[in-house]
Amino acid sequence: MSQSTPQPLSQTPVANTDVSLLEGLASTRAIRRYLNEPIPEAVLRDILFAATRAPSGSNRQPFRFVVLSQGQRAAQAKALIADSAQQFWAEKRQNDQYDKGSGADPDSPKSRMARTMQHYVDEFAKVPCLVLPCLVRYREPTPMEGASIYPAVQNLLLAARGLGYGGVITGFHGPVEAELKALLDIPEDIFITCTLTLGKPQGRHGPVRRRPLQELVFGDTWGEAPAWAEDPPGTRYTKAGPPPTARS
Amino acid sequence: MSQSTPQPLSQTPVANTDVSLLEGLASTRAIRRYLNEPIPEAVLRDILFAATRAPSGSNRQPFRFVVLSQGQRAAQAKALIADSAQQFWAEKRQNDQYDKGSGADPDSPKSRMARTMQHYVDEFAKVPCLVLPCLVRYREPTPMEGASIYPAVQNLLLAARGLGYGGVITGFHGPVEAELKALLDIPEDIFITCTLTLGKPQGRHGPVRRRPLQELVFGDTWGEAPAWAEDPPGTRYTKAGPPPTARS
Repeated sequence: MSQSTPQPLSQTPVANTDVSLLEGLASTRAIRRYLNEPIPEAVLRDILFAATRAPSGSNRQPFRFVVLSQGQRAAQAKALIADSAQQFWAEKRQNDQYDKGSGADPDSPKSRMARTMQHYVDEFAKVPCLVLPCLVRYREPTPMEGASIYPAVQNLLLAARGLGYGGVITGFHGPVEAELKALLDIPEDIFITCTLTLGKPQGRHGPVRRRPLQELVFGDTWGEAPAWAEDPPGTRYTKAGPPPTARS
Repeated sequence: MSQSTPQPLSQTPVANTDVSLLEGLASTRAIRRYLNEPIPEAVLRDILFAATRAPSGSNRQPFRFVVLSQGQRAAQAKALIADSAQQFWAEKRQNDQYDKGSGADPDSPKSRMARTMQHYVDEFAKVPCLVLPCLVRYREPTPMEGASIYPAVQNLLLAARGLGYGGVITGFHGPVEAELKALLDIPEDIFITCTLTLGKPQGRHGPVRRRPLQELVFGDTWGEAPAWAEDPPGTRYTKAGPPPTARS
């Protein structure tokens, strides 16, 4: 039992948080810079407990979470994905022309994003915690199968936010999936649904930015927003997606 | 503007809730019985705002929510899915032998589930609000694409819980997808990712029940739970999934 746990976790309730449910939903954002400190076991327990409360089709609970913090295998898994992430980002930075256009201005959102991503992949091998959310399939893959795993992933990120931590989802495991499965004894037919990194946020980070609600919510006709689809005061906006040159 | 809205929603902050983030994550469960009252527009705004704060790949925000409350088209969409749901459930009830084995005992979990589902599909056409979460694809379907829509769906369900409402995800739209798209002018290439019903819960409902954490969380070896993967006191358990006869 870790030093931070005065009694067995089976007798320890989930920690309290000052963050309200609606406030948490509106303020959880991708966190890619972490302090170099491990996440206490009691915190991991609370975060994973919240993740596994998520719904799934027929309550089958086909989600499994491989949680890699410290130890040799965890370090190997992080290093494997770090290599993959660095290659992926180098290509994307080039292909999506992150350093051209507004990217030439170091204060532009594009530049800031490029710096954040570069830092993220450079430091990936040192992330405090790497989680691989996995899906145990009971039928052929369908585009709907994510309905039984990504709600749990979102719960995980929200719980982290509630406890003063943060994380982000990526697909960096893709190119090294076979090696990862061999390293961690993950059966071949398991679907690793994403790569998730977690840690205590480093420094300040910006607000959640989205498109206006009128572009995302429709009434009984596609493309037509109901009158009530108005953002609350103080909402921050973004254009959607990566730089336009990257869109196909 | 509805009677419940004293000022424009663009000047109305999201409502407060007494539910904390971690409490909300642990206590949100599928709600299938609703009071027969419409959801106020201010509540719908808050719920959909929370939904659209969810993360998505490259912050592309490919999620669109078709929200059907009142009016003729909404009624037609609900009736369409209700028919599909009634047929689907009649077959499932038979095939999965919900009325045999422990299902013969009216107090068994199997019996209770069967009664709840029968009520749900029988009353489907009268659900207070039907939401169709849709994905705008920018590439060929992949099993990972759900990572950009189901987190938003989960946010939606959590926000509903925070405001005293509840809902559930189903796939009942599947067999009538073409008719729904025609009715609501949804373009053919849009992926309707699930059917979601929302309303104020009727009566009392049970706790969230899941498998023990030790079955769902692993360390650096598949199938082996870390020592910290202990449920907190008071956790309620279930066997996973539909009756064993239904498993393939």
